Amino acid sequence: MAVTFEETTREFLDRKNFAVLTTLDRQGSPQSSVIWYKLEGDTILFTTLDGRPKARNLQRDPRVSLLVLDKDDAYRTIEIRGNVEIRPDPERLLSKELTPSYLGQDPPKDPDGQSRLIVRIVPEKVIPFSV
Amino acid sequence: MAVTFEETTREFLDRKNFAVLTTLDRQGSPQSSVIWYKLEGDTILFTTLDGRPKARNLQRDPRVSLLVLDKDDAYRTIEIRGNVEIRPDPERLLSKELTPSYLGQDPPKDPDGQSRLIVRIVPEKVIPFSV
Repeated sequence: MAVTFEETTREFLDRKNFAVLTTLDRQGSPQSSVIWYKLEGDTILFTTLDGRPKARNLQRDPRVSLLVLDKDDAYRTIEIRGNVEIRPDPERLLSKELTPSYLGQDPPKDPDGQSRLIVRIVPEKVIPFSV
Repeated sequence: MAVTFEETTREFLDRKNFAVLTTLDRQGSPQSSVIWYKLEGDTILFTTLDGRPKARNLQRDPRVSLLVLDKDDAYRTIEIRGNVEIRPDPERLLSKELTPSYLGQDPPKDPDGQSRLIVRIVPEKVIPFSV
């Protein structure tokens, strides 16, 4: 069952923090990497290339954990557990939005023959942590 | 098969960075949290209370992913995938070492009746990432 973000969670997630995404490989083992993301309603969006391990993992098993780290306070995090929905992004709209937002520059060209995806995390559980 | 850390990996891991640990719950879904850790040889040590979700998960399934983030450069990370070995730490030796190291103070008292564990991650794969 999807959840609604509380206001403090929404403010935290809207701050352009980094997040560690974990997906499950073919054996069900966890794999993690850092991603950029964007809040959209009560979901989280990120982008990946279709051939990447995380994309292949998510096409097989939609379960993720996302650990978002406060960029100014490493002792403040929010964990989001949920499932993803994937759709193509042939015009790379999300890259064109996220790369300038995080890096202040346009995204580099994607490798030939690789298509880009938008992945939406639909949260099922939100776990804030602070010390 | 266990791996040997390269020297650059060892230097990175020896820098008291934060790390995001992912374990698997009863359904095989990923759960993530931030941990302190310590390098020991070609393994990583951390501590947790016996009753914590991550401890229960690891007692059931020893597979983990550990994403270590460079505290000075969020675009530099190392992912370690491996399996854990768990042993009791009745004298809380690892807490007494890690808390001063990260926080500059002694660890707080543990909750009554809860025992502390030392968890050793034995890496099977090491994946450095930098942009």
